[in-house]
Amino acid sequence: MQESWNGYVNDDDRALLKVIKFASPTSAGADCIDPDCTWVEQWVHRAGPRKQIYFEPQYVKAGIVTCGGLCPGLNDVIRQIVLTLEKYGVKNIVGIQHGFRGFFENHLGEVLLNRHVVQNINLAGGSFLGVSRGGANISDIVDSIQARRLDMLFVLGGNGTHAGANLIHEECRKRKLKVSIVGVPKTIDNDILLMDKTFGFDTAVEAAQRAINSAYIEAHSAFHGIGLVKLMGRSSGFITMHASLSSGQVDICLIPEVPFTLDGPNGVLRHLEHLIETKGFALICVAEGAGQEHLQQSNATDASGNTVLSDIGVHLQQKMKSHFKEIGIHSDVKYIDPTYMVRAVRANASDAILCTVLGQNAVHGAFAGFSGITTGICNTHNVYLPIPEVIKSTRLVDPNSRMWHRCLTSTGQPDFH
Amino acid sequence: MQESWNGYVNDDDRALLKVIKFASPTSAGADCIDPDCTWVEQWVHRAGPRKQIYFEPQYVKAGIVTCGGLCPGLNDVIRQIVLTLEKYGVKNIVGIQHGFRGFFENHLGEVLLNRHVVQNINLAGGSFLGVSRGGANISDIVDSIQARRLDMLFVLGGNGTHAGANLIHEECRKRKLKVSIVGVPKTIDNDILLMDKTFGFDTAVEAAQRAINSAYIEAHSAFHGIGLVKLMGRSSGFITMHASLSSGQVDICLIPEVPFTLDGPNGVLRHLEHLIETKGFALICVAEGAGQEHLQQSNATDASGNTVLSDIGVHLQQKMKSHFKEIGIHSDVKYIDPTYMVRAVRANASDAILCTVLGQNAVHGAFAGFSGITTGICNTHNVYLPIPEVIKSTRLVDPNSRMWHRCLTSTGQPDFH
Amino acid sequence: MQESWNGYVNDDDRALLKVIKFASPTSAGADCIDPDCTWVEQWVHRAGPRKQIYFEPQYVKAGIVTCGGLCPGLNDVIRQIVLTLEKYGVKNIVGIQHGFRGFFENHLGEVLLNRHVVQNINLAGGSFLGVSRGGANISDIVDSIQARRLDMLFVLGGNGTHAGANLIHEECRKRKLKVSIVGVPKTIDNDILLMDKTFGFDTAVEAAQRAINSAYIEAHSAFHGIGLVKLMGRSSGFITMHASLSSGQVDICLIPEVPFTLDGPNGVLRHLEHLIETKGFALICVAEGAGQEHLQQSNATDASGNTVLSDIGVHLQQKMKSHFKEIGIHSDVKYIDPTYMVRAVRANASDAILCTVLGQNAVHGAFAGFSGITTGICNTHNVYLPIPEVIKSTRLVDPNSRMWHRCLTSTGQPDFH
Amino acid sequence: MQESWNGYVNDDDRALLKVIKFASPTSAGADCIDPDCTWVEQWVHRAGPRKQIYFEPQYVKAGIVTCGGLCPGLNDVIRQIVLTLEKYGVKNIVGIQHGFRGFFENHLGEVLLNRHVVQNINLAGGSFLGVSRGGANISDIVDSIQARRLDMLFVLGGNGTHAGANLIHEECRKRKLKVSIVGVPKTIDNDILLMDKTFGFDTAVEAAQRAINSAYIEAHSAFHGIGLVKLMGRSSGFITMHASLSSGQVDICLIPEVPFTLDGPNGVLRHLEHLIETKGFALICVAEGAGQEHLQQSNATDASGNTVLSDIGVHLQQKMKSHFKEIGIHSDVKYIDPTYMVRAVRANASDAILCTVLGQNAVHGAFAGFSGITTGICNTHNVYLPIPEVIKSTRLVDPNSRMWHRCLTSTGQPDFH
Repeated sequence: MQESWNGYVNDDDRALLKVIKFASPTSAGADCIDPDCTWVEQWVHRAGPRKQIYFEPQYVKAGIVTCGGLCPGLNDVIRQIVLTLEKYGVKNIVGIQHGFRGFFENHLGEVLLNRHVVQNINLAGGSFLGVSRGGANISDIVDSIQARRLDMLFVLGGNGTHAGANLIHEECRKRKLKVSIVGVPKTIDNDILLMDKTFGFDTAVEAAQRAINSAYIEAHSAFHGIGLVKLMGRSSGFITMHASLSSGQVDICLIPEVPFTLDGPNGVLRHLEHLIETKGFALICVAEGAGQEHLQQSNATDASGNTVLSDIGVHLQQKMKSHFKEIGIHSDVKYIDPTYMVRAVRANASDAILCTVLGQNAVHGAFAGFSGITTGICNTHNVYLPIPEVIKSTRLVDPNSRMWHRCLTSTGQPDFH
Repeated sequence: MQESWNGYVNDDDRALLKVIKFASPTSAGADCIDPDCTWVEQWVHRAGPRKQIYFEPQYVKAGIVTCGGLCPGLNDVIRQIVLTLEKYGVKNIVGIQHGFRGFFENHLGEVLLNRHVVQNINLAGGSFLGVSRGGANISDIVDSIQARRLDMLFVLGGNGTHAGANLIHEECRKRKLKVSIVGVPKTIDNDILLMDKTFGFDTAVEAAQRAINSAYIEAHSAFHGIGLVKLMGRSSGFITMHASLSSGQVDICLIPEVPFTLDGPNGVLRHLEHLIETKGFALICVAEGAGQEHLQQSNATDASGNTVLSDIGVHLQQKMKSHFKEIGIHSDVKYIDPTYMVRAVRANASDAILCTVLGQNAVHGAFAGFSGITTGICNTHNVYLPIPEVIKSTRLVDPNSRMWHRCLTSTGQPDFH
Repeated sequence: MQESWNGYVNDDDRALLKVIKFASPTSAGADCIDPDCTWVEQWVHRAGPRKQIYFEPQYVKAGIVTCGGLCPGLNDVIRQIVLTLEKYGVKNIVGIQHGFRGFFENHLGEVLLNRHVVQNINLAGGSFLGVSRGGANISDIVDSIQARRLDMLFVLGGNGTHAGANLIHEECRKRKLKVSIVGVPKTIDNDILLMDKTFGFDTAVEAAQRAINSAYIEAHSAFHGIGLVKLMGRSSGFITMHASLSSGQVDICLIPEVPFTLDGPNGVLRHLEHLIETKGFALICVAEGAGQEHLQQSNATDASGNTVLSDIGVHLQQKMKSHFKEIGIHSDVKYIDPTYMVRAVRANASDAILCTVLGQNAVHGAFAGFSGITTGICNTHNVYLPIPEVIKSTRLVDPNSRMWHRCLTSTGQPDFH
Repeated sequence: MQESWNGYVNDDDRALLKVIKFASPTSAGADCIDPDCTWVEQWVHRAGPRKQIYFEPQYVKAGIVTCGGLCPGLNDVIRQIVLTLEKYGVKNIVGIQHGFRGFFENHLGEVLLNRHVVQNINLAGGSFLGVSRGGANISDIVDSIQARRLDMLFVLGGNGTHAGANLIHEECRKRKLKVSIVGVPKTIDNDILLMDKTFGFDTAVEAAQRAINSAYIEAHSAFHGIGLVKLMGRSSGFITMHASLSSGQVDICLIPEVPFTLDGPNGVLRHLEHLIETKGFALICVAEGAGQEHLQQSNATDASGNTVLSDIGVHLQQKMKSHFKEIGIHSDVKYIDPTYMVRAVRANASDAILCTVLGQNAVHGAFAGFSGITTGICNTHNVYLPIPEVIKSTRLVDPNSRMWHRCLTSTGQPDFH
């Protein structure tokens, strides 16, 4: 039986996406994404339960699928979707195993989900349903959705997965299937357009900061120690920037959005020399996607279609070793790549709350009759957004933003060019 | 020598305080504080470095003081104020010990502060400068400020401390002293008007959630176990609500803003019986200021002038024990008060970043010539606010907000009246 | 099918209990329990798998029961017993719920156990089977054992529970039942005779130390702060002593084995004055069973038959407050009782290994045909001991031992009498 | 002024090294190192304060040096040595920076040490004094000891460092210098002969287990996931064995002491196939020194003279990837090398106590007039040992020991040959 929800959200409630009014259009340091925005278009739907719902809960079959790499909080979102579906009165809830792959690999059966099964899954990291990269034929997936008689599908994944979810949504509309496809953005890199932050990011920064602190201790204790930490961030440097800021121990922070030179009088290596001479040690934090121009490009792509990056961490490590050898100064480089230890932790309290809100709102959105949407937090308000809006491009660190300037203030690093 | 700052903030930059447009003025579930607000008034100053500064750094003497109870992140803010002052070129930085008390207790000398002294103070909880409750004669404090020749005073504290800071600011103006008084809101309860959140709150919720999990394990393992956790929150229930939401294990969440009955058919005790009968155990989380109407009022106040609260935790514990004894059902009540273990932890990564931003902006504000202001984050933007605006009243949980409804959805508790 | 075990232990292998040879019988500082021991009696059976086993695994029904209060590692031991029973080929394994109570409360059914059920139970604290204090009629329990057709019963509990297990063992022998009763000592207080340490102790000390560190930070940050931490230890002060030693921050450590005076020139209160005057703050750590002579004795006992202790923590807190008020010196006392937060954590790595060894050896002992035994680690070797040997009395801290002297060296406290 | 020590240890007190009496000399599964030992020789000196001391504290100058790689607890030992020296009345305590290198690099000055300086250094990992590998000319070091007028030198390091310390001791005797050289064994690998365990080992196992759990979560969540964790252990597998045992999640544990084949019907790769087919995922834990026979030998050595090992982790990763590609089965290998994150953590409570004891005993040993000794815990008793006794060889995991058999029972792995 369906519960009644207190505090319904009116279908016409809107939240404002932009809240900065610049003194002049050329004002520096804005957090603004698009300086030419027209304010009118920036009001979006508030997320939450609607008085009017578009499915009869007792007949609903709902599916959940998690795609891509691990991210802290996946189990919190799965759990909350299940708990909220049950509150509505849904009795038939299944998990699709190992991402979209689960739709067409026959031996991967559906996992039956209910409040008992999911009760404590949030206490461990990872995905209770399993993940996998890479895709599938959209038509095959929709065939499978039809065969399974799913009324709702909740898709947890990143940009690529959301693109897939949108294609599934469009194919369903083409076939006139009344299936609600609702996304929940999952990107440990925090690189989704328009959103204040995505779940798992806070937790990842916390875990990354611990790795940085280890590198600091190694570098500080060693004679002419140089700690080098490579963090996640294929095209955006949010984790690297935030972890550097929160640790307060980083001397050099390198992100994909800000090019740098290694050699020459303004290069990273020369600044390292300076740090070794003056402080006796140094700490570098680099995003995996930074400085790709220094590496030999490969043409390979992974199962998700992402270009396989050459390893900037290993490259930097080798450059530093050979540079200090060349100039005859002792150095002791310690390289840490904590990626898998960062991704696998369970969500911290702040992310657990975000996941709770996202999971509840995903279900409210489906019952409100939305499809092809995703849910997130914009300017502190929870909203629904059409998927195409958020996958237009990857959200990047703005090198003119106050946050990047704060990071530069914290590291004290010069311009590397 | 003063550094130049990239990305100056224009003095006329503003951030918008309100971002919700309601479908109708009676729309439920708003996060809005004042439904009759006029938008025009809601634009406030952006925080950040100004091109034009109003002090010559090399002659500035700056003081820092921390007042009230402990809160995670105090050392992060102290550290960042010192680092930023040094970036401006300030050479004379001192800490006042043990709150306002340090201004007039002669044996409490000034602590000299610089980057070496503060380098790693953020790795431990507490306050490097010491705290104490309670006040002082404003005139005496300003005498002391004059005697010490302070040009800037950074005051970390809660509502009461900010009221004091504002009086100091006014007294300084009356005496025509060119002293900049800048507050940084410090309240583990997150109960400051207008601000998205205050530093230390995230960390406190994280630590509180661990206590809740302990109580869950005790209650779940015991025969007819009842776990009872009392958390901070004299007049606002933010920590209790957020920790309950993030744990996902709480059955009953009691906060000061929402009255409840203990006895009777709709009371807490009857619901507990129901939980014991159906689940076999139960978990209650209560804010220290909740249910004061059930307690004998005391007239005592502490050194900060706060009314001494009777202990709702002990009261509930005794009521539950005697109730279950009375009705002849075995119960095993475990009471946890983790207050001091929550307050004393170091800031987590998210709070560390917030503290970095607040500390930098406090210094920018002083150099910009502001006084009688405080700094915080509103709708994801960092702003300066006049102190009187934020101390008008205590920020409370809105029982009609979506967040409280999410909490009720999570606990499944009925209305207790 | 039964596995074969590599590295069988020979039935005649023995481990030596005593390894100190004193220069003279009056030599101080010995860790020795009984100075008149005859060495010959001190050889005991090594624990481990035997070539010859006394049960046919495929027909065995084994039960597990956890009694008393929580202790880190209970789930690790349960898990390992189940895994090891399955390795032998046992198919019928059940958990008795909520201690001995589970034998006779009809609604508490048996929990079926196998490797899938127990796979990850060690990742959470508490007891997967539930605990409860207190006893039961031995004859009723043995009736229940017969009715359930148990061949082996693994009993996890403290001194009192082991006494019960031994009575069950004797009753089984009287009834000529071929049932193996094997204990695993569970006491967070580490107060079991002859054993190097019991499981959960290391973890408890770690968690207790965190509470002490919180108290240190509160005391150190406050003006004339006094931190007071009460830890577990009804009659033995091991947790309090070890946590004080490991923290290195405690000024006064009070345990049941060492009486102390509060008032007078050599009392605790006078030393506190001295600490406040010289250091500005102080930190006290007290075992719950310490200083009972200062309290009004109650005649009450709990369900386990233990005398209900009056609360030394509350008593000390009040005495300190009134003392400093009396002598007109400001003080700020913060009292922390972390008991339930300490007990509920999961086992650390060191305890996880100990639990693995104990769980395996408990099963090996049962298959070897032992009954009425318990298993533990003595002088770094794993052994079987007859239950009566270990429950003769409670293991206490020896005030003449090197460890207590190290603790005194660490705190710098004088004799309080 | 010197304190008097309660509970002096008599110079003739001895502790027994061996406590197992085997049923027959061929009995399997012994923890014994040398089956032909004569018991008589196995009594060693108890550690602790002596009534008679051989230095006048007020004139003593003591030095501390930390050599080799990082190990949790270094700061605890440094701190305790300083605190204990001060208790004796020593006023002149210095730290030599960055290992033996500090004796002859002129710009590395002595660090003055006292209780204020070391008060909280144990709250962070690393070495407060800095470390470095590699050696120095013994004669130069003794020259420097003479020039600095050191009376005591406390040397924290591993096997190689102890060999150096012994040569320094012998050179001092040759020069008839009354200098006490006392070692404290520092090896995260726990590979020191005769000792129950060395400081930092427990903490390292705890941290290593967290890395294993991350790998488990990655492997378990991925489709055909294989987690691979490489841990420390150049020639001994203690960390790998203990971390595997404590996690209880490892399927294959590979250590230097037990050779294995990769290919063929009994090889690791075939067993992995089996695990992927039956469980769907697998978890491997390998010590850095394991399986060196599969790698191309390098002739290089590091600054400590250790052979540079080829990377078994990278090798295994590549072998697994190519193997599964070859046989046409999807696999998803995640490789974690947590070494620097394990080494840099602060000591846990159990290690903090061990460090306290070792630090105190090192000082007692020096004042008792010993030189050329080291201190450690043998069969639960604290003893002094001549350095040559403990550096005869590296302590190894005995493949016939009960502990290794327990590990095999836990992983369920077959013999790989």
